[in-house]
Formats: sequence, C-alpha cells, structure tokens
Amino acid sequence: MTMFYPNGKPYLKGKPKQGIGLNRQKSVTYGNRGMTLEEDINISNQYYLTNDIAVIHKKPTPVQIVNVDYPKRSAAKITEAYFKKASTTDYNGLYKGKYIDFEAKETRHRSSLPLKNFHGHQVAHMKNVQKHSGICFIIVKFSSDGDIFLLDAGILVEYWDLQHQGGRKSIPKAEVVRRGHSIPSGYLPRIDYLKVLNDVYL
Amino acid sequence: MTMFYPNGKPYLKGKPKQGIGLNRQKSVTYGNRGMTLEEDINISNQYYLTNDIAVIHKKPTPVQIVNVDYPKRSAAKITEAYFKKASTTDYNGLYKGKYIDFEAKETRHRSSLPLKNFHGHQVAHMKNVQKHSGICFIIVKFSSDGDIFLLDAGILVEYWDLQHQGGRKSIPKAEVVRRGHSIPSGYLPRIDYLKVLNDVYL
Repeated sequence: MTMFYPNGKPYLKGKPKQGIGLNRQKSVTYGNRGMTLEEDINISNQYYLTNDIAVIHKKPTPVQIVNVDYPKRSAAKITEAYFKKASTTDYNGLYKGKYIDFEAKETRHRSSLPLKNFHGHQVAHMKNVQKHSGICFIIVKFSSDGDIFLLDAGILVEYWDLQHQGGRKSIPKAEVVRRGHSIPSGYLPRIDYLKVLNDVYL
Repeated sequence: MTMFYPNGKPYLKGKPKQGIGLNRQKSVTYGNRGMTLEEDINISNQYYLTNDIAVIHKKPTPVQIVNVDYPKRSAAKITEAYFKKASTTDYNGLYKGKYIDFEAKETRHRSSLPLKNFHGHQVAHMKNVQKHSGICFIIVKFSSDGDIFLLDAGILVEYWDLQHQGGRKSIPKAEVVRRGHSIPSGYLPRIDYLKVLNDVYL
C-alpha cells in the first residue's frame, strides 16, 4: 500500500499540525492539490447540486486506518492512520445523464504542469473512463497568474506515456493554452467548468 | 459535521482494536455494511475492471482528520481522526457509457431491511442521481440465508419518505423479492450485478 509523504508538498511543510483540523479542506490539501482551486471547485459543485444542474462530488481522501479506540459514550477515535495515494481521480459524478470524471491540480510553475502531480493509477483510471465513454478531463490552475484551464484527459495520457519514452516530464503551459479550454472564474459558480463541458463535449 | 458512533453496530462492538489494521476491508466495515457483501462487490468490481466490462469503484471511507504528525524520513501519521457519515453512496462508476451509483447493505434481519441502514443525505443523493438520469440502486444481502437482491433506489426512496408519514421503518423482504431482482452469486464475478442491470435498465 502506498504511504503518503508530505515532503513533496512545500506549500504545506510549514503548516502547524493543529491547523489541519480547523477546516475540512485543509485535511485534503495533502492530496497535492491547491487549496483555493479545490475549495472553488467544491463550492461550484455545491452550486451545481443545489441548482439541480449536476451531481458531482469530491471523493474522500483515501486513508489507511491502522488503529481505532472506542471511548465509552463518545465517537470512535482513529489513533493511527496514513494517507494513501488515490487509485482514481478526485471528482466524479453526473451531468446531463453523462458520467463525468476529473482531477484538479494547481501548480506554482509558471510555464508548465509537472506530470509528477499525477500517479500512474490515476492516469490508468482516466484511460479506462475514456475507453468506457465517460467524459474525463483535468482542471489545471497556474497559481502564478490564476489562469484555469480544462484539459482533456487524453492529452495528459499522451504526455504521460511519452515521458516513459524519453519525453518531457511536464505539459508546457503553451500546450495547455493551445489544446485546453480556459475556464473563466466568476462568482456563482466560481469555476463554471460545466459551461466549458457544454462547448467541448456536449 | 457528523461523527460516527460504533455503538449502533453490534456486530463490531466486540472486535479487538488490533484487528482493524490487519486488512483494509476491515477499516471500511465501520460504514455499517456486511464485510462479505462488500468484499464480494469489491472483487466483482475488480473483475469488471480487469476484464474491461465496467469502471466502478468504492469510495474511500470519509474521515475527519484532526491531527497529523510528520516523523522525519517517514510517512505522515494521522494521530487523531474520526469517522464521518457518507454524504453520498459507497459505489459509483461507469458501465456501457452510463453513470452507475449504488449502496450495498447486508442485514441480519430475516424478514426486512431496516431503513436505519441509510442516512438522509444518502437517500437525497439517490434522488438526485435518478433525477439526473443516472442508474441508481441498492444491493441488499440477507445474511440469514445469503439471498442478494438488486433494488431500484426509487423503492428505497418510496419507503424512506413514507416512514416520515407514519409508515414502517423497514422494507419487508417480501417487497424486496417482489419488486427487486435476485443476484445469483457465483465465482467470477462473485456478485454479477451488472448482468441484472442489463436485464433491468439497459
């Protein structure tokens, strides 16, 4: 089972432990995603749900539970557990009768999205979703300038496979701009990625 | 945020703490599901996936993380966390281009499925899935005789809503037999619920 190492997540290194519990979102940022992007997507999904537009949810963070205590008359307390790598993507659901599946990534790199933001089994999952006629994509945010794009999973798969044949280890932002679709961020919903889906897939 | 209490789960009360870590499945049985049914479904889903039949996964158990330690040169260790009630169903995915969503429940009751096996937000989620043209159902196992049925979520919703108008607090097994669909358990896959889907929904 894959354990999760925080070392690769500089934006969290300095975070005080007690900070983690303050907010449910925080506990999930270990998944190597940008807080803001994830929060905005969750709020957008809530908007879609309450307005009967789509049913899309974020999956819980996968955790390997090792030990649990049962204090009398209070909640079962997990006293030892570890983060696991996700075997699928973070978000999936239903829109206009279609299966929707995507991963959201925020990067501080100005000019590219490093492929190390993804795991092999996530990419394999995306391949499977597309093979079975699901709509699969990634939402990328370049935090340097705040640009957000929807990129078809097929393009990620393309770069992922090429890197093992000596290809580059990241997707150039220019490529994301050229082959992806800009998602304007607004107020309600904050990140209207379904609008882009309408233009691109439906 | 809803904490999870083991008290309501008699079949787990006596389980020794150290037993929990031995097997990933065990950690999920806190979700008030029968081990065997869940294991069989997970193995069936693995069969569907490896044989390119469908892409259906169980969602991770939702956990509220309160405290995490970072030992040097080793995995981040969650030292305090609590189980949360799921806000959606346990399983969803993609089959023949359709969005599939279901919950699996095993009951020791011989003649009915108590509605307390479900949470209000799970039922609300099922309503949403059906409203948005997804395929939504429950898989019920009566552990007394091992009978397994697929029951459309609409029937659960019907009983769920009636209980708040003085209706009964469980679905009679006779009703599950009459309006549901028996799922034969075999070897590969152990629980071929997709075969039933073909007959009923597709």
